[in-house]
Amino acid sequence: MREPESVPYRVLSLLRDNGPLSRAQLSDRLEIPRPRLLAELDRMVAAGKVLEAGPAASRGGRRSTLVQLDPGLRFAAVDLGASSLDIEITDGGLEPVAAYSEAADIRSGPVAVLGRVSEILHKLAAQGHYTRLDAIGIGLPGPVSFRDGVPVSPPIMVGWNRYPVRDTLAREHGCPVVVDNDVNVMALGERHSGVARTVDHLLFVKIGSGIGSGMQHHGRIYRGAEGCAGDIGHIQVESDGPLCTCGNTGCLEAYFGGAALARDATAAARSGESAALAVRLAERGVLTAEDVAECATGGDTASIALIRNGGHRVGQVLATLVSFMNPSMIVIGGGLAGLGFVLLSEIRSVVYKRSLPLATGNLPIVMSELGPRAGVVGAALLASELCYGDRPA
Amino acid sequence: MREPESVPYRVLSLLRDNGPLSRAQLSDRLEIPRPRLLAELDRMVAAGKVLEAGPAASRGGRRSTLVQLDPGLRFAAVDLGASSLDIEITDGGLEPVAAYSEAADIRSGPVAVLGRVSEILHKLAAQGHYTRLDAIGIGLPGPVSFRDGVPVSPPIMVGWNRYPVRDTLAREHGCPVVVDNDVNVMALGERHSGVARTVDHLLFVKIGSGIGSGMQHHGRIYRGAEGCAGDIGHIQVESDGPLCTCGNTGCLEAYFGGAALARDATAAARSGESAALAVRLAERGVLTAEDVAECATGGDTASIALIRNGGHRVGQVLATLVSFMNPSMIVIGGGLAGLGFVLLSEIRSVVYKRSLPLATGNLPIVMSELGPRAGVVGAALLASELCYGDRPA
Repeated sequence: MREPESVPYRVLSLLRDNGPLSRAQLSDRLEIPRPRLLAELDRMVAAGKVLEAGPAASRGGRRSTLVQLDPGLRFAAVDLGASSLDIEITDGGLEPVAAYSEAADIRSGPVAVLGRVSEILHKLAAQGHYTRLDAIGIGLPGPVSFRDGVPVSPPIMVGWNRYPVRDTLAREHGCPVVVDNDVNVMALGERHSGVARTVDHLLFVKIGSGIGSGMQHHGRIYRGAEGCAGDIGHIQVESDGPLCTCGNTGCLEAYFGGAALARDATAAARSGESAALAVRLAERGVLTAEDVAECATGGDTASIALIRNGGHRVGQVLATLVSFMNPSMIVIGGGLAGLGFVLLSEIRSVVYKRSLPLATGNLPIVMSELGPRAGVVGAALLASELCYGDRPA
Repeated sequence: MREPESVPYRVLSLLRDNGPLSRAQLSDRLEIPRPRLLAELDRMVAAGKVLEAGPAASRGGRRSTLVQLDPGLRFAAVDLGASSLDIEITDGGLEPVAAYSEAADIRSGPVAVLGRVSEILHKLAAQGHYTRLDAIGIGLPGPVSFRDGVPVSPPIMVGWNRYPVRDTLAREHGCPVVVDNDVNVMALGERHSGVARTVDHLLFVKIGSGIGSGMQHHGRIYRGAEGCAGDIGHIQVESDGPLCTCGNTGCLEAYFGGAALARDATAAARSGESAALAVRLAERGVLTAEDVAECATGGDTASIALIRNGGHRVGQVLATLVSFMNPSMIVIGGGLAGLGFVLLSEIRSVVYKRSLPLATGNLPIVMSELGPRAGVVGAALLASELCYGDRPA
């Protein structure tokens, strides 16, 4: 059961999401009696979290003092993917003050990868983007024990099992750290600042190298018993389907996702099915999902068919999940969201046809609005929740 | 977001679940200051909800007064199935004081069925089981708008769409009424008094004429955007499977459930595949799931195969749902739970083999403990929550 929210959390998150407000506005909006609010504000000023910034515009009568987040607040938001590393430094209102991305291989292990994260953070500090961090939020591409701040049996993160990610970063940077699964983090970002604002029951689906999902109910992430809820990449689509890297057959990821799409595109190029893909394969030696997207845009029917087939498989799984959880919105994100309308329309057609009519009567299925930034936005949000005193469930 | 629980609710639900307690014990266990508690107790006594019943056993020092639920409290718990009607009258602690069951056809419509429910309730009153009801809880075999107290597009409840079930019963019996989906209600019962006590993330699966499920997270029912979450009977198991009554092909219910099992048993009897089923068909003219259960117990291989195949299909769907929601426990209930160990072991084998290992490492899959009483226990619990002042989410 969730604890009632504290006054400081309510004040700080309101300032984060609305910008500066007068004391009078805070008191009104949060329905907190004036004397109580003033006492709490004094404590928040002393803690370096808010600043009282002179008189607000008059509402008639005595002018109320304007309150804002301390402009020196800094969060680090880290989004680790299978093959990428994205970092943003934000202010207390989650506005980015610096951003950095590079390729990274999660399989090089926690010491190397987290060492690189810290190196980048120190460099951003040296460049003047922060003097100290108030909190760090980090998303990892695998199941996470949210309570312990460690990855748990993550399939693609070799050497990371139960590695103390939270404690390592906290020690190195002297601030609180929150660790979560990357898809949960993207879902959080999308609900806070993207297309899913105020959605009650959100199903976020990430289609990248692999496929995962994140659920949010009234803004709270649903993690399940072991923290692995939403891990839909190895749901069986066909019992006699192709072999998956996990050892089972017919998993969703064996049909679709960046890896499966590159494999199928290469086969289509070699078999002569797609001249456009064959040209690219000859030029570059390898094919990626981006090649398929570009060839599809150029009208290559084999590429369009690959995307359509993949969307069909994703749609089959989502149709089941929609009947089960009855979400209010589905958002598609991740690297392959770039496959665009062909993918989206195929997913829609299967879900709308196969799920319970009552569950699809009012169910938007849309592309992520934040795109590749969803992860860092969500990680910054988590960092702010930790710093502002919420206890995420 | 959930409201914090009120003091009266916390007192009343503690007395419901623990029996009489002294004022001192209540104050200790609920961490409510003594003067506040006494003032609240006075109000609850005046409202006819609790009784102060003389001195409690001494803990040394002055004796504390014993507090108990008013023995005159009465709830009506109603469980409407596709073809059955079960009613219990309980006291404030949910102990049954009277029970009544009869066959009923939900398709005879809301006026006839609810009229019959009221007739039975009035008869139970005439027999002295209650003088007035404090609340009624009722479970319906279809999607329900919990907020409005009406069924919403229920597939098997012809003529019930948006019928004002709550308001009709409230007017007739002069007490508050709470309406929910029957599987949600069974799940509530099982978590309150059955095998799933204190389970954090419960997935309850009802296999009766049809198949449905109910989820609970920390004791709260998850209903989804339109109240139809858990409706898994029409999830597609095979794209080229048999035609379902819903018009789609390959739905779970087209493969298994009471109706599908009766159909397949009849075919096995007619084709000569099962001599045992053929004998029963000749004797009675129709076969039911019970015939299959009894023949299976008697060693009939065709009957065992029918149950095993059905369990396999249910297991396929549950494997997907387990990867997605990562529950802490699965409870199998409903009329076909009587198929027993063959069914359970087949479901277990598919789920444990196909779901994410992290999600099944510590996942009991068990039979309902309350059996056919799960529905009325859950309905009585809902009625008590309403009467005791909770706001179910």
